[in-house]
Formats: sequence, structure tokens, C-alpha cells
Amino acid sequence: MVRVGVLLSGCGVYDGAEIHESVLTLLALERAGVEVVCMAPDIDQRHVIDHQTGDPAPETRNVRVESARIARGPVRDVAEVGADELDALVLPGGFGAAKNLCSFAVDGADSVVDPGVARLMGAMLDAGKPQAVACIAPAVMATVVRDRGESVELTIGNEPGAIAALEAMGVRHVTCDVRSVHVDRERRVVSTPAYMLAANVCEAADGIEAMVRELLALVGADARTR
Amino acid sequence: MVRVGVLLSGCGVYDGAEIHESVLTLLALERAGVEVVCMAPDIDQRHVIDHQTGDPAPETRNVRVESARIARGPVRDVAEVGADELDALVLPGGFGAAKNLCSFAVDGADSVVDPGVARLMGAMLDAGKPQAVACIAPAVMATVVRDRGESVELTIGNEPGAIAALEAMGVRHVTCDVRSVHVDRERRVVSTPAYMLAANVCEAADGIEAMVRELLALVGADARTR
Repeated sequence: MVRVGVLLSGCGVYDGAEIHESVLTLLALERAGVEVVCMAPDIDQRHVIDHQTGDPAPETRNVRVESARIARGPVRDVAEVGADELDALVLPGGFGAAKNLCSFAVDGADSVVDPGVARLMGAMLDAGKPQAVACIAPAVMATVVRDRGESVELTIGNEPGAIAALEAMGVRHVTCDVRSVHVDRERRVVSTPAYMLAANVCEAADGIEAMVRELLALVGADARTR
Repeated sequence: MVRVGVLLSGCGVYDGAEIHESVLTLLALERAGVEVVCMAPDIDQRHVIDHQTGDPAPETRNVRVESARIARGPVRDVAEVGADELDALVLPGGFGAAKNLCSFAVDGADSVVDPGVARLMGAMLDAGKPQAVACIAPAVMATVVRDRGESVELTIGNEPGAIAALEAMGVRHVTCDVRSVHVDRERRVVSTPAYMLAANVCEAADGIEAMVRELLALVGADARTR
């Protein structure tokens, strides 16, 4: 059975994993008959945002504990997951990807990535195993690839500041519409804009479904060459 | 344009709205071209559950503020929403329905319902406007209908304790499989077991999609007789 990791970053678009993208990723993977392994870093969130007002709230929440809300129960500590356990890895978006998995939201091109996240994503790249990144999560991939002294093709929507920061990290940015994906066939990385462009959950769902389809096509290609 | 209210109860299966059911409800409604109005009571959650361990956490969270995570921004206070604004109303499940919208999770057949929730659901019943309840949310409908001295047909899965408590409230319980729904055509109430029975997100999605289809069929019937 194909096993795909889903790396979460909390629970809520402004301080964690984007909930719609995460659920739609789980649905697309499970509808494809894939075994899903949810994981997150066991660290405090950068901050907590009150999603009703958009303001910071005087609270502390743990990324792994909040991610368990999306998974409906315990999620693995990403620091303890090996690339040998997985056929592929997906990062849904949400600001948690750019605030908790790495520091792109505050540091831009100087983004620093969580060590456990860097280790797993680097090991997936080393093993040539496919990965998919949605919405703002391409910033995490860009940080990991920059730290390896390498480059990667990614899409991150059409916000000029985000594109410029990615390009400053050595990314070749490719523009994509909301329902399509870009595939870097050398690095085996699929990306889709999702809520960087989506105006509603239907558009996000179409992009996420396309992303999972491309990711599993790469996994299937692996299986055929084994 | 058809407008459908989605009444949320927090964000997370053990203390709020079930996240998968909520997102799948939003997706099914938006794919049908419906305008969605998210709402929740502006009250503290009964408690906060650490979804990683399953234990209560020493925190306080507000139902409306947490619901805004699922909605990706502000949600209406249910106490301020009128039945005249809506063509239909949906309650996704999650323990929040039985802990925050009413007290079924602790009081069983003696369940007490939030006044704002009771007012809106009662007004929908008075107006003959269709409502749908998933998972444990039939307990909210049962409480509202019992308080009116009326009865309703509902499905709530196959857990004997939950069925007995509903029957003690005057509900006629109907067994349904996870991918189907029951429709009480007199009260115009659709119910589906969702995660009361679902083993995975695919099964939950199939039930939720069927629920939304039936709900919108009732709305469509309304439109044709206007």
C-alpha cells in the first residue's frame, strides 16, 4: 500500500495549517486508496491569531497538538518520521507553513526552516521521492532547497512580494492558474496555488485534487520502475 | 441565490465542530452554487480537549472565535441570524454540537439547548424551511423539537446509548448506513450518520454530499412552489 505523509502546521489559516486545504488533501489521498500518515513539529506556534478579529491573541498553542484537530487524533512528531517510511510527502498551506515550519512569513528570503522538517524533506529529495506543496508551503520547500545549495521550480500564486522572495532564494517561479499545478520533474516536486489564488473552497479543491493526482502519478511511476 | 446557514460549534471533533464534516459541507454547498452563511454561538466552549492526548486542557476558548478557523474569517453570532435570511440550515457534527450547542453529551435526554440556537432552529421549523443535521448534531434537533412538544424522525448512527437518549426525547430513530440519509418530510429535516459511523473521510464525504443533495432538493421544491 502506498503511504503518503501529510505535514501539518497547526489548525487555522492565519497561524496554522489551512483547514480546507488539509481536509481536501486527506480526502483526495484516501479516495485514491492511499495510507495517510499525519505529522507536525512538536513546537509552539509562532503566535495565535483570533480568526474572528484577525488580531494576535495572548495565548500559546502547540503546533502538533493543534494539528491533531485536523487529523481527528494523534499525529506523529515530524522529527521522528523517516523518509524510508513514506512514498511521498504533502504540505498543505496556511500561514502555519510560513510561520511554524519555517520563518518565511517574517524573514522572507532569509527564511529559517525547522530542523525536523528540513531533515525529512531533505531525505525525501535525497531519495528522489515525490513531494507536493500547496499555497504558501512552497516557501518551506524553497528554504530547504536553498539550504542545500540547489534550485527548484515552484508556483506560489501571483503575489509579487512572495514571488520575489522565492526568486531571491534561487527558485524558478512558474505562474499557474488556481486549478492547475506545476511539476518540477527533476526534483519531483508538485506545487499548486490553492488559497494563494482561490476565491472559494471549490477552486481550492480543484487545485488540491490536481496536486494529489500528479503526486500519485509520480509515485506510480516509481512503483513501475522498482 | 439560495442562502444556506452553516451552524458551527467550535473547531475540532472532541470539543467543537467536526472539521472534516464542516469542510465537506462547505464544499458540497459551494459546489452546488449556494451562498453560505457561517455562524456560531458567542459563548465559551464547555471545555477544551487536547486532541493529541484526548485529555481536557486547562484553557478557555470561545465557540465563535474557534469556528472562524473553519470559516477562514468572521462568522455571524447565531443569536443575530433570522430564519428570514436563510433558505436552509445545516449543522455539521462533532462533540461541539452536543457540548456547546446543547448539553446532550453530559445530560442525555435532559439536554438543554443554547437559546440562540433554539430560537433560529425553531423559527426554521415554524417557517417550514429545511434543515440538515450530521453525526451527533441530530441531538440538537431532538432537544429543540422536544422543547416544542413535538416529534421528529432522525438517524444518529448505531450507538445504543445515543439512540435510547434520542428516543427518550420522543424522536423516532431510523437506522441509516454511513453513505445514506434519512429525510423527515413533515418536519423537513435531513440527517446522516457521518462520523458516528464513518471509518474514514471518504465515507464521511459520501454521507455529507448525500445530505446536502437532499437538503437542496427540499429547497428546490420550495422554490418551485413559491
